Amino acid sequence: MFVLDETLAADAVELAHLPLCLALLMNDRRYPWLILVPRRPNLREIHDLNPQEQSMLIAEISRASRVLETAFAPAKINVAALGNVVEQLHIHVVARFRNDAAWPGPIWGKFPPTPYDAEGLAEITAVIKSALTA
Amino acid sequence: MFVLDETLAADAVELAHLPLCLALLMNDRRYPWLILVPRRPNLREIHDLNPQEQSMLIAEISRASRVLETAFAPAKINVAALGNVVEQLHIHVVARFRNDAAWPGPIWGKFPPTPYDAEGLAEITAVIKSALTA
Repeated sequence: MFVLDETLAADAVELAHLPLCLALLMNDRRYPWLILVPRRPNLREIHDLNPQEQSMLIAEISRASRVLETAFAPAKINVAALGNVVEQLHIHVVARFRNDAAWPGPIWGKFPPTPYDAEGLAEITAVIKSALTA
Repeated sequence: MFVLDETLAADAVELAHLPLCLALLMNDRRYPWLILVPRRPNLREIHDLNPQEQSMLIAEISRASRVLETAFAPAKINVAALGNVVEQLHIHVVARFRNDAAWPGPIWGKFPPTPYDAEGLAEITAVIKSALTA
């Protein structure tokens, strides 16, 4: 049975159930930052998915990327499956800007998260949720 | 027409033409590190590929990941499309180890590359090339 990793559950907010993945928003207002978690038990690597699920995954990565592009007009989308710390397979889809805190470096392990305030979190969650599920 | 970005051409060694991607080896012996570059002109983002090409890309990412797993038995494969510095779409597929220089952080922007010596480069190139094209 699929159960979301505890660290991901603590650091992020649930947005939507896509056909394969649970879509989360990282609670870090430094960057518009989505996380896709395939709802399959005991996955660690992309190649643990079967070919059909892999195609679904990359389609959902593209969908999440386009939602971020439309909503935020970033300079670049960063996509990454790292998992050196949190073992459950999860894919980061992050909107990057030339003036963001970590540009042009990667965002991971650089700064502690800066959580949204309640209003900001409600606003971005509503925008992305509606775009993702449109 | 597809032309490999100059920085990628300078930092990496050509391994194989996969159905979609040119497969390269980064010349950095800190990590077994492949780079996949879809052979399509003017790509910046994964979602610039059409759905069929996206499926081919994730299949080739899985193939490269399995080659690294078989050859090096890493703790984790890291997969990332960043492109904040080099704009041409390229996907990193990296074998990570609990005792590597950057573990558990990301590898990018951390250390300058440590090139292989000629013998080491010939050896790893031969191993990966033969596995990738098998």
